[in-house]
Amino acid sequence: IMQSKRQALLLSSSNCHGYSLLEFAKKEICSFLNSNNVNELIFVPYAQNNFDGYTSKIKDVINPWGYSVKGLHTYEDPAKAINSAKAIFVGGGNTFLLLNRLYEKKLVNIIKEKVDDGSLVYIGSSAGTNVATHSIHTTNDMPIIYPPSFNAIGIVPFNINPHYIDKVESEKHKGETRDQRITEYMEMPHANSVLGLREGSLLYVNKNEFTIKGVAGAVIFRNKEKKEYEVGADVSFLLEEKL
Amino acid sequence: IMQSKRQALLLSSSNCHGYSLLEFAKKEICSFLNSNNVNELIFVPYAQNNFDGYTSKIKDVINPWGYSVKGLHTYEDPAKAINSAKAIFVGGGNTFLLLNRLYEKKLVNIIKEKVDDGSLVYIGSSAGTNVATHSIHTTNDMPIIYPPSFNAIGIVPFNINPHYIDKVESEKHKGETRDQRITEYMEMPHANSVLGLREGSLLYVNKNEFTIKGVAGAVIFRNKEKKEYEVGADVSFLLEEKL
Ligand SMILES: [Ca+2]
Ligand SMILES: [Ca+2]
Repeated sequence: IMQSKRQALLLSSSNCHGYSLLEFAKKEICSFLNSNNVNELIFVPYAQNNFDGYTSKIKDVINPWGYSVKGLHTYEDPAKAINSAKAIFVGGGNTFLLLNRLYEKKLVNIIKEKVDDGSLVYIGSSAGTNVATHSIHTTNDMPIIYPPSFNAIGIVPFNINPHYIDKVESEKHKGETRDQRITEYMEMPHANSVLGLREGSLLYVNKNEFTIKGVAGAVIFRNKEKKEYEVGADVSFLLEEKL
Repeated sequence: IMQSKRQALLLSSSNCHGYSLLEFAKKEICSFLNSNNVNELIFVPYAQNNFDGYTSKIKDVINPWGYSVKGLHTYEDPAKAINSAKAIFVGGGNTFLLLNRLYEKKLVNIIKEKVDDGSLVYIGSSAGTNVATHSIHTTNDMPIIYPPSFNAIGIVPFNINPHYIDKVESEKHKGETRDQRITEYMEMPHANSVLGLREGSLLYVNKNEFTIKGVAGAVIFRNKEKKEYEVGADVSFLLEEKL
């Protein structure tokens, strides 16, 4: 069994309090793209409905950093475009909508194979991070469309909860807290470990090495425990998903 | 086409700030059960995993009101039990888990038919309310299991968002607000009107008459507008789902 050559940067979100769009992750994104000799990105706007508007917004941020950006929706054949791309950025929005479109356009397996063989580098944010993991069981999004499966691209073998937050919405509101929601998932027989990425946090995936980067830490739900991880923490143990 | 004889009480939640479990809805539940000549309830605990514990908790509240309560999980054949029941109470927990179990045990159509012909009255709370509507597209729950469909029992032809809340989680957190989530759904071509029931609010379904009851109001997302409805409001116009 060949070792995956995956290169991925999985952001909790594109927005982080106190920063402009993607600014908190600029250093990491640039060093990631440079170390992979990438100067053009295909942006995947499928998690939202305004493809042109969404792509422009991202382009306006990333172009000045020295990378060209083109929307995947501008290609006649998205699968062919992915096949000849060196890097994709999958943006946030609604995870169900995004995964459904990736299945519709038959991109799930293509992306997985190209990332594994090292010919495609992957950046995801929010919903774009959810679909890069084992499954979308731990998205925060509303299930606005029924996708053919909750299984996702599987660049990493565990689950991620983006926008992770541990405080309660309001003491008077009786809806579940984020931790209660994740605990409901952890009770399922099919549950994987869950990496909760706080806003400002991101996971750097370098083959079999997984590192917390960014300006905020993360938590991991695993073996009936929740543990804190600081920026810089090596969480490569998450590779061993089956316990 | 026969008119539905449905009798249902759809609660936003079982807990409401300032009240003990189900206390805010006691008057409505009792008058609903009495007017339907019901003195025994089957409780459906499938939205959670501890069937016995959950059933006891509900029984401890409802028994003293003068109604007997038995857990559906204590019957060998749940479909047969529903077939001879006069009333069910479907409790909250996780909507995906609940709907998946209702499909597994082939209860979705049985409940729908019996409610429509007037031989079964339905009380739902939170997840138990979501599954009573057209679909679970507007649940707040985490998608911890993949159900065979997001279509639900369809006692009412529109969608409900339980635990509806319109304030933001935190000004520093960048996750979507509830209104943004519901708006994402409303953009879908398959979207129905959405009744957002604030905690403490419930919908009384009396054949084709729908009324907001309880101690809190509701909102309706429909025709690209959001409107407020007070306790006592007649929202029977929601019957005309196709606009
Ligand atoms: Ca989202
Ligand atoms: Ca719930």
